[in-house]
Amino acid sequence: MPVEPPVVPSLDQLRAQVQVVLDRAHDQHAEQLAPIGTEMTALIDPIHALLRGGKRLRAAFCYWGYRAAGGAHSDAIVQVATAMEVFQAAALLHDDVMDRSDTRRGRPTAHRVLAAMHREHGWDGDADRFGEAGAILAGDLCLNWTDELYSTSGLPEAELRRGRAVFDLMRTQLMGGQYLDVLESVRPWESASTQDRIDRARLVIRYKSAKYTVEQPLLIGATAFGVDDDTRAALSEYGLALGEAFQLRDDLLGVYGDPEATGKPAGDDLREGKRTVLVAHTLDTATPTQIERFNELFGRADLDEAGVDWLRELVSSSGAVDATEAMISALSAHADAALDRATLTPEGERMLRDLVGIAVARNA
Amino acid sequence: MPVEPPVVPSLDQLRAQVQVVLDRAHDQHAEQLAPIGTEMTALIDPIHALLRGGKRLRAAFCYWGYRAAGGAHSDAIVQVATAMEVFQAAALLHDDVMDRSDTRRGRPTAHRVLAAMHREHGWDGDADRFGEAGAILAGDLCLNWTDELYSTSGLPEAELRRGRAVFDLMRTQLMGGQYLDVLESVRPWESASTQDRIDRARLVIRYKSAKYTVEQPLLIGATAFGVDDDTRAALSEYGLALGEAFQLRDDLLGVYGDPEATGKPAGDDLREGKRTVLVAHTLDTATPTQIERFNELFGRADLDEAGVDWLRELVSSSGAVDATEAMISALSAHADAALDRATLTPEGERMLRDLVGIAVARNA
Repeated sequence: MPVEPPVVPSLDQLRAQVQVVLDRAHDQHAEQLAPIGTEMTALIDPIHALLRGGKRLRAAFCYWGYRAAGGAHSDAIVQVATAMEVFQAAALLHDDVMDRSDTRRGRPTAHRVLAAMHREHGWDGDADRFGEAGAILAGDLCLNWTDELYSTSGLPEAELRRGRAVFDLMRTQLMGGQYLDVLESVRPWESASTQDRIDRARLVIRYKSAKYTVEQPLLIGATAFGVDDDTRAALSEYGLALGEAFQLRDDLLGVYGDPEATGKPAGDDLREGKRTVLVAHTLDTATPTQIERFNELFGRADLDEAGVDWLRELVSSSGAVDATEAMISALSAHADAALDRATLTPEGERMLRDLVGIAVARNA
Repeated sequence: MPVEPPVVPSLDQLRAQVQVVLDRAHDQHAEQLAPIGTEMTALIDPIHALLRGGKRLRAAFCYWGYRAAGGAHSDAIVQVATAMEVFQAAALLHDDVMDRSDTRRGRPTAHRVLAAMHREHGWDGDADRFGEAGAILAGDLCLNWTDELYSTSGLPEAELRRGRAVFDLMRTQLMGGQYLDVLESVRPWESASTQDRIDRARLVIRYKSAKYTVEQPLLIGATAFGVDDDTRAALSEYGLALGEAFQLRDDLLGVYGDPEATGKPAGDDLREGKRTVLVAHTLDTATPTQIERFNELFGRADLDEAGVDWLRELVSSSGAVDATEAMISALSAHADAALDRATLTPEGERMLRDLVGIAVARNA
């Protein structure tokens, strides 16, 4: 009897399957909230809208971690992979409240949508506070649903238990990483050395991005099915390197990205004053006069187009872009090479190698 | 061979066992966060401090739901019960951010502690926003840990799966109830009829308090072990009635409670402008002049002692306190009577009857 070739969904096919899980979960949650009142739709519709966007890289890494380890395609592993996206939605919702962001994935953020609803109705109290409260609760729902999707996925209990160690660690460490990011945005920075700034920015990247974007979703999938220690170590190395490269690309897009593609205003990171590796490199070679002007402009929420352009020019002319591109290339190569030390299914290995290029692509 | 009598921990003994689980979890999470930096203690220590307080009623209802259904004492069910407390901590942390509350359980709220740390260090940016961001993340950690404690409790998989339906429903519906509470605090109220106000306040009570304080923790425990449909229905009735009575008591304590016992400033609910059943009753019999003065004072964060006294006197003289006490008594009796229709272990039934009085006791 001929052996059936393994099911190998393309990234688009996987995205569509994730959407099916999200739609079903949305309907089920809407039903659970219906007895409380029809007003609940205003709480959960922004979540569903947010979850329609995004590249779904986290779902892909989780799914392909499982498949690369030898697991077969199933609705269950697609549901586990979907949990990664819902977890990210929670992080984005709360991040946007903490940063008071206006836009996300090309749409107004959930707290802005809810604040606008408050204003339209002319309700009592402060519209922004109302919006923030709603978005905090929307993020809370996503955290609850992350685990609900994971635990009710239908993956065999033994697999869920193995994956859970990484799943739980991811959820704890991301909040730690977010807190470190908040801390780094308020602690003394101007007086720090370039190396110190780079080290601090890279630690934030590691815990706020690299681990939960690539390494941990990948290891959740891989350890759920089961891998040997060498493969696990190799996947971890791949994930951390690629996750860091992904964030460095994101930092470049935060300065130079096309708003159409990033879904955020041009130069958003400059207005936000995000203390990235890119900026640390820039300041390393800047003249005192440039630094003075930089300090005036960087982190100003009302920064105009000319200010954004001046900062961009400073970053480019400093060589920081080239240095960051070089880091991205080196980290991508490192990630790719790490796979040589892993024992993986051919289709899994192929997709993980493809994902290196996709995760660090220049078009958002 | 003589049959061993069942282990019957007192409420204090159960509280101590819950604390052991909390301490162990705290140590484990501190270890997971340590690689990110020593600063992480500022994020998780306020959680641990918050969790040292409280009556742990939710843990008791969950534990005794399981025991009343026939389950034996085990570390596993104590850990599941502990998850209820961690879930409440999440709700309190985020509630305090949304309400901008200063005090909780007699201590400064987490966001105030973190804001004070920011000020002490003279860090950049807004101290209050820093504190809020930290408390949002602390609440997020508690949501993650709620499920981690539940899922890794060691209860048999079949029991966890049965309990999970209620566990997941509880987590979704509480966020809905919180959102309804936020909505009710901003939607038109002055123009509403007394009956409408009471109905709306009772719907908030049901979803923001009754279900997650009594009914759902109880049903998580009971359905995890397994109960027949009649017993489940009876426990649900007990839980909703007692949960509502508990919240009505809490509303009275929010107006008249001793700050020593409640851990909140005297008359806190009046300063916050909480739209309770008690206040709806009060306004029903108030004169136009009284209503005018009420509207001036109610919900003012800077309300002085004299203002609090005037409002208290209005509530008392309106008969609203007596009406609320009568509701508490009727609901408590209803809860007690519902147990007659349940098939329960003797020690379980005894404790659930005791818990009626404990949950609605006047001393906070």
